[in-house]
Amino acid sequence: MSISAVQHVRYLDSLYMAVQHASTKKAKKRPVRRSPISRTEGEQRFIAAATELLRESPFSSVGVRDIATRADVNQGFIHSWFGSQNGLYLRVVKELFASMHASLEQQPPDSVAINPLDPNVQFAVRLLFWLDLEGVDVNEVRPELNALMHAFTQRMITHVGLDDSTAAAITMQGSAIGLGTAAFGHLIGADDNTSFTHAILVWRRQLELLAKNPPK
Amino acid sequence: MSISAVQHVRYLDSLYMAVQHASTKKAKKRPVRRSPISRTEGEQRFIAAATELLRESPFSSVGVRDIATRADVNQGFIHSWFGSQNGLYLRVVKELFASMHASLEQQPPDSVAINPLDPNVQFAVRLLFWLDLEGVDVNEVRPELNALMHAFTQRMITHVGLDDSTAAAITMQGSAIGLGTAAFGHLIGADDNTSFTHAILVWRRQLELLAKNPPK
Repeated sequence: MSISAVQHVRYLDSLYMAVQHASTKKAKKRPVRRSPISRTEGEQRFIAAATELLRESPFSSVGVRDIATRADVNQGFIHSWFGSQNGLYLRVVKELFASMHASLEQQPPDSVAINPLDPNVQFAVRLLFWLDLEGVDVNEVRPELNALMHAFTQRMITHVGLDDSTAAAITMQGSAIGLGTAAFGHLIGADDNTSFTHAILVWRRQLELLAKNPPK
Repeated sequence: MSISAVQHVRYLDSLYMAVQHASTKKAKKRPVRRSPISRTEGEQRFIAAATELLRESPFSSVGVRDIATRADVNQGFIHSWFGSQNGLYLRVVKELFASMHASLEQQPPDSVAINPLDPNVQFAVRLLFWLDLEGVDVNEVRPELNALMHAFTQRMITHVGLDDSTAAAITMQGSAIGLGTAAFGHLIGADDNTSFTHAILVWRRQLELLAKNPPK
């Protein structure tokens, strides 16, 4: 064997070592496989872990592996239970909108039932919008969004005294204001509590005036 | 030289060939370096190319290389001229908001000066929101956004007859409605022209009533 052939063999050995080392490093990063837990518990863990991580950093920087590590559940179950990482995110949004709806039903009729400056509301809306902007089909969230809008329309009819058609228009308006402010209020000065409170007072006055002077 | 050493040498040769092939492929993908063009022309080409590509696919799937290829300008200039890919995107948003402002100034006072269902408006707002959600500092767009909001406030004072403080609240409301509807109208039924037109009529009536019955 010539010296150069020996060098080649050494080179191949070092290549082999590098590959070995890389795969060892990969294995270390994988979340520890735990003893079996129930699907219900596992799903709740993934939802909690994803929520925590998505609140800590820009949405696009959160990886499926980070979520599995934080949840301490094997990452394969994200695909089995939610279809995909985005499926898990849609579930997070669905649950938050469902709880906004529940809270709306419990609030007194004259209150700002859903506060767009509430961090939970802001998080839910921003995540929904981000998924939509990423090209994810967000239709799965429609039932919760529609239920929320329907409950709002009912409040406008029952408590503000608007007719059905005006209440529908005001629901669209209120949803645009609520969603726009929750997600991007900081861009239009609506993250300032005093200005926001004033804007809400003006909006209430508009609704009162509209109830007393319905469009022909 | 043993047979196995010969095999190793052949193996190294084939590795070398593979690397050569890969780098040839890489070189082919690079945009053709053109004869020098002016910075102004180059910037406009990048802006046009980015706009086209961002309208064709989800924002996150557009790469710096795609933009350079479409613009037919070397991609290094994106960094020299805009600081980064996101810097280029911010510039796209700035120019679109500036042109919305220009169009607002030209519209008759009783018109919907900026239509949230206009594809140009929707594109500008969605891109701005996406950058914000990606954690990009969007403060660079504030001058254009504030100028637009200021012009809107002036219209509310001069043409609708609102007092300064109410006009400020209505500007925030109108911005939230406009931005929310432009970006995510399809989620709240505002992408339907009939419903949207009705909602606009109701909003105008609210403003008229407010002008006649100012908040105390």
